[in-house]
Amino acid sequence: DTYKIAVIPGDGIGKEVVPAAIEVLDEVAKLDGSFQFQWTYFPWGCDYYLEHGEMMPDNGLEVLKQYDQIFLGAVGMPELVPDHISLWGLLIKIRRGMKQSINVRPAKLLQGLESPLKNPHDFDITVVRENSEGEYSDSGGRIHSGNDEIAIQNAIFTRKSTERAMRYAFELAQDSRKHVTSATKSNGLTYSMPFWDEVFNAVKTDYPEIDTSVTHIDALAAFFVMKPQAFDIIVASNLFGDILTDLGGAIMGSIGIAPAANLNIEREYPSMFEPVHGSAPDIAGKGIANPIGQIWTGKMMLDFLGHSEAGTRVLNAIEKVLASGVKTRDLGGSSSLEEVKAAIIQSL
Amino acid sequence: DTYKIAVIPGDGIGKEVVPAAIEVLDEVAKLDGSFQFQWTYFPWGCDYYLEHGEMMPDNGLEVLKQYDQIFLGAVGMPELVPDHISLWGLLIKIRRGMKQSINVRPAKLLQGLESPLKNPHDFDITVVRENSEGEYSDSGGRIHSGNDEIAIQNAIFTRKSTERAMRYAFELAQDSRKHVTSATKSNGLTYSMPFWDEVFNAVKTDYPEIDTSVTHIDALAAFFVMKPQAFDIIVASNLFGDILTDLGGAIMGSIGIAPAANLNIEREYPSMFEPVHGSAPDIAGKGIANPIGQIWTGKMMLDFLGHSEAGTRVLNAIEKVLASGVKTRDLGGSSSLEEVKAAIIQSL
Ligand SMILES: CC(C)[C@H](C(=O)O)[C@@H](O)C(=O)O
Ligand SMILES: CC(C)[C@H](C(=O)O)[C@@H](O)C(=O)O
Repeated sequence: DTYKIAVIPGDGIGKEVVPAAIEVLDEVAKLDGSFQFQWTYFPWGCDYYLEHGEMMPDNGLEVLKQYDQIFLGAVGMPELVPDHISLWGLLIKIRRGMKQSINVRPAKLLQGLESPLKNPHDFDITVVRENSEGEYSDSGGRIHSGNDEIAIQNAIFTRKSTERAMRYAFELAQDSRKHVTSATKSNGLTYSMPFWDEVFNAVKTDYPEIDTSVTHIDALAAFFVMKPQAFDIIVASNLFGDILTDLGGAIMGSIGIAPAANLNIEREYPSMFEPVHGSAPDIAGKGIANPIGQIWTGKMMLDFLGHSEAGTRVLNAIEKVLASGVKTRDLGGSSSLEEVKAAIIQSL
Repeated sequence: DTYKIAVIPGDGIGKEVVPAAIEVLDEVAKLDGSFQFQWTYFPWGCDYYLEHGEMMPDNGLEVLKQYDQIFLGAVGMPELVPDHISLWGLLIKIRRGMKQSINVRPAKLLQGLESPLKNPHDFDITVVRENSEGEYSDSGGRIHSGNDEIAIQNAIFTRKSTERAMRYAFELAQDSRKHVTSATKSNGLTYSMPFWDEVFNAVKTDYPEIDTSVTHIDALAAFFVMKPQAFDIIVASNLFGDILTDLGGAIMGSIGIAPAANLNIEREYPSMFEPVHGSAPDIAGKGIANPIGQIWTGKMMLDFLGHSEAGTRVLNAIEKVLASGVKTRDLGGSSSLEEVKAAIIQSL
């Protein structure tokens, strides 16, 4: 099998970590022998915007549809391009355009990683984030001006998308520890979240073998710090999933580690694999960025393509290298990106 | 001075921690000698609801207006009364009705408290939460049914309330370490949060001596775990403030510790002092609840009444008792509520 992958390194450290991850993926494909990648680079992002006035060409989405999957680094150069332009013109545009309505993000204590928690136990969480609507609905506006100005942001929840995210969470739980936690806030947000709770209560009756709990987002955030080992699969709205997964990165030891997959679970269009971290302009170009988030994201792409043996190989290599002490600075080490990459390739 | 305080113990452990805190406050008033409290109890809450069909009497808000301040325990018995009834019928009703548009919540590493963080440094954060609108605006609805059902929740931000919260944060920063962080998410929520950012940029020009930063809520939540010592005053919307302050409780060592004040900064109506924790029905009635959140909340009431010396006395007593090892179970100790209370009164 040859997989045609559209590669968008994007901005900042994306341009460094993506090529590194690709080397790792090519190596594991070679070792596996049953598949290979064909990478096509697209130089879309903020540089492209500064030259062309748009983050990607008009026909960008059509172009991407010709690929099996998308491998993306990071987007954003807030000093030069406002976030709402860079992100809605590329990252969120692709998530929506390719109907990647589920975002999956694991948070798991890896061997060799120092959690900032005193007693992190052995947590292993997967957050299923609704990725197409909710608080990120592009709906709202303003009225009046000056002291009377009012801004309105509409969060729109459809049963279809809500249910899809929840069902996906229950499916994942069947292959995991059979527990799903729903992140709610129905005591404060009295229209969206009671609806969310109702859909959850309806969906769970189809999965009697799965245990469930329902926790308010404020308490859930606190529990990520106090007892992360209590969670298996968590299903969350777009915004709550966003917050929980950065927290998940933090308790792992660094957001430079955390991987993510924007999935079109119907496999009608390509999915997009993109780490949780951003473009980190402050450390870009110095060769010190942590490539592990991007490499682990590559493992998620391998899994989604059905090569979970190769995926496990990548994760094992990451763990071995971390345990051996080869780490970038954000993890308390002193190795460069190149050294971490080389060590991972070595131990595949 | 005699302060007339309306006391609403509410539900669950509220009924235990409120009387304990009142004993402490009476004692510190006696020691101070310049003021005293006159407490009037109101048995409002879920028991009241089960008997009368409402959380408080119709004229409840009018009654409360006759008092100087309100001292509240916790509200909620989710097994018997749905949260949206208990909270919107009492807690949020009072916040809104008394125009308590600012919620102030410190998160600070106390001597003798074990943070779950390996290296918590000496963090000392105050979150100023907009308390009257935003994501908690009671606005929204549904359309269609069955598979086509859609729920909409409107987050409404007025310049007046947004600016008020921000100005209050800047005022606090002047008496603190002169730094304000604004919690935003303008890269995802493209109507409310760019407005929030604009107001912040306008307000900060009036406080040139205060340093500022603007951080997305997802990163900010992660930073509470990774570098809480980086923050001084944080200004946040209703929902973001809610999430950050539970996290603040978690990094302190327990949400049973965290205090809060719902302030009517114009002093037109009484303010309400109410800890961050909830009614914790699972441990209610056992004498094991942690009274420190409520007692520290009492310290915030003392400060707001202008008795900050007495307030400091209370906080010092809390720290001394914690350092001596007298702690409830949630903090890893084995003392009862009564023992903790007695020890605090002793060391005033
Ligand atoms: C109980 C709930 C409505 C409330 C809130 O979200 O405001 C609580 O979490 C708090 O922080 O005081
Ligand atoms: C950059 C931003 C729009 C994005 C999001 O909030 O979805 C990011 O935080 C993420 O989690 O992928």
